[in-house]
Amino acid sequence: MSNPSILILPGDGIGPEVMAEVRKIIDWFGAKRDLAFDVSEDLVGGAAYDKHGVPLADETMAKAQEVDAVLLGAVGGPKYDVLDFSVKPERGLLRLRKEMDLFANLRPAQCFDALADFSSLKKDVVAGLDIMIVRELTSGVYFGEPRGIFNEGNERVGINTQRYTESEIERVARAAFELAMRRNKKLCSMEKANVMESGILWREVVTRVGQDYPEVELSHMYADNGAMQLVRAPKQFDVIVTDNLFGDILSDCAAMLTGSLGMLPSASLGAPMENGRPKAMYEPVHGSAPDIAGQGKANPIACILSFAMALRYSFDQGDEATRLETAIEKVLADGVRTADLMGPEGGVPVSTSEMGDKIVAAL
Amino acid sequence: MSNPSILILPGDGIGPEVMAEVRKIIDWFGAKRDLAFDVSEDLVGGAAYDKHGVPLADETMAKAQEVDAVLLGAVGGPKYDVLDFSVKPERGLLRLRKEMDLFANLRPAQCFDALADFSSLKKDVVAGLDIMIVRELTSGVYFGEPRGIFNEGNERVGINTQRYTESEIERVARAAFELAMRRNKKLCSMEKANVMESGILWREVVTRVGQDYPEVELSHMYADNGAMQLVRAPKQFDVIVTDNLFGDILSDCAAMLTGSLGMLPSASLGAPMENGRPKAMYEPVHGSAPDIAGQGKANPIACILSFAMALRYSFDQGDEATRLETAIEKVLADGVRTADLMGPEGGVPVSTSEMGDKIVAAL
Ligand SMILES: CC(C)[C@H](C(=O)O)[C@@H](O)C(=O)O
Ligand SMILES: CC(C)[C@H](C(=O)O)[C@@H](O)C(=O)O
Repeated sequence: MSNPSILILPGDGIGPEVMAEVRKIIDWFGAKRDLAFDVSEDLVGGAAYDKHGVPLADETMAKAQEVDAVLLGAVGGPKYDVLDFSVKPERGLLRLRKEMDLFANLRPAQCFDALADFSSLKKDVVAGLDIMIVRELTSGVYFGEPRGIFNEGNERVGINTQRYTESEIERVARAAFELAMRRNKKLCSMEKANVMESGILWREVVTRVGQDYPEVELSHMYADNGAMQLVRAPKQFDVIVTDNLFGDILSDCAAMLTGSLGMLPSASLGAPMENGRPKAMYEPVHGSAPDIAGQGKANPIACILSFAMALRYSFDQGDEATRLETAIEKVLADGVRTADLMGPEGGVPVSTSEMGDKIVAAL
Repeated sequence: MSNPSILILPGDGIGPEVMAEVRKIIDWFGAKRDLAFDVSEDLVGGAAYDKHGVPLADETMAKAQEVDAVLLGAVGGPKYDVLDFSVKPERGLLRLRKEMDLFANLRPAQCFDALADFSSLKKDVVAGLDIMIVRELTSGVYFGEPRGIFNEGNERVGINTQRYTESEIERVARAAFELAMRRNKKLCSMEKANVMESGILWREVVTRVGQDYPEVELSHMYADNGAMQLVRAPKQFDVIVTDNLFGDILSDCAAMLTGSLGMLPSASLGAPMENGRPKAMYEPVHGSAPDIAGQGKANPIACILSFAMALRYSFDQGDEATRLETAIEKVLADGVRTADLMGPEGGVPVSTSEMGDKIVAAL
């Protein structure tokens, strides 16, 4: 049997640097744990635009469809701000999500013990925090038609369409319930059913899917209250399921509760392929951070933890994922710190590449 | 000349209780400061539904259009959860906003010194916080057409439409710039121009309006990053302007940073009327809190501070507004606390009505 395949798309800014560290980890698993992967690499975002004039070439899209998992770094940078909407770096990312039909975006917000002081929130509010946000990723206002800027009378109007079918809601709800079953069996669904009909349908479908998961305690919350509750008492949540736009905002809000964006991975999952593995893309939550790109300052942990999620969700190697996560915790407990993790209590300052080496050593 | 007129709509839950305390304050200004108002009262929300079968009667709507300012308590309660979307308590509120054309919703998020410990955020992150969110309130996905739940093939689809015209963006942007001019001359506009065309138009129009306010330092931020930055370092902001839906979520997020929802007022302003005063409605940010309604536990301060905003924005009585705000700060500094404000350090426990009396005494 051939090795499982991974397509690496480092992207822009710090993407290539952090991805170089992921490669070290992948190599380690191949050498030491008999887990070899066929790894290929290609361009996305501004890097792809520079070469092809589009933020994702068709051949790259085709490759992404064929591999077992895509690892993406980050896209975007000030250089590309002037580009037309249709070729901006983000469109490459959105095309991957849409054409691979990666409808379930898993965004853990986890507070690492060694870093609890980093949060702007009080320690007791966030210590031990471990929530999972499941964001719908292929529909809603991100992709709904009609959209655009149109003339109307003697002015223009900007239009986007929020749009959810029952089956779109059902499949992401099911993914969230499945996750809740493997965690603390609590699921909170967030929408604005008090204002939006799409929210009414969302609530109805999530409730119906919930009948198949009687063990899961399901609750519903308006998204504005959800933002409040995330700030007030985030540990009340286990799994949260919400739509594409609310998920964008609420997951970023949740991410910031931990105080260390450089630590947060994500997985975007679609339907099972022929080999049983889900279509999948893994990426850090942080962006391309152009201000520190190329200086060896970036924290590669979010990207490495994204590979841990790949081990767990694409390759059914939960134990190996845990091994990797534990190695990272150990390195942090030893006080090893990239610049973003350096707090008043000090630590051992390391570069991007040294952090990767330390994690390999801890493995 | 006749007295300025106020229509009080106490609404549901704790609305009537907190509004009773506002009445004491209004009476005090009439008796002691020669500021008499013609006050009338009517029903909104569930209370209106119980009597009229609709959450806002046409006669009430007509009255609201005629007065100088509306003071609203809160709407909603579990009893009304089963009602059809079209007659839910919230529809009364949304009708007032829409028909009075209250396009600029001012939501201050202010951290009171005496209450800084209440926040889930670290004290140094929020102490002295004073930001103003200007939320567009009469357009966007709240009111855009088409909307509804439709059949499509053999399933249903929920649709809402985000929709902004240039003039809608322009007028709320102008309101925000005007406010920024009277504050610290910093305005941050939030949208998702990287994903939504309506956000592209938003950014373009706000930038254009900014040319009329060269003294104001204008910045733009994606709304997801906005949520992060509010949690990470809220004091970086002075005035924030954003659309109806982002404003709903971001202002609630900002509100919770202060830790004391029972303290936060809001103003919703429209175009100037013939007498020069803007159409206006004032309401606390908190909801109807049905769980504590009728028990004398509610904190009336948010509602009283909403009246202070009325003094400032409708009646051009900025000094009297400050007088009222100062009286409230004094009462808090004296340790007077409704149940929601009672922290580990203790204080003088008071009921809703005692809090009102203390504030009158401090005036
Ligand atoms: C880069 C941008 C298009 C993207 C989004 O809005 O989904 C990002 O914010 C994210 O959350 O992954
Ligand atoms: C009650 C509800 C309709 C309302 C809104 O969504 O605008 C509320 O959340 C608010 O922010 O005033």
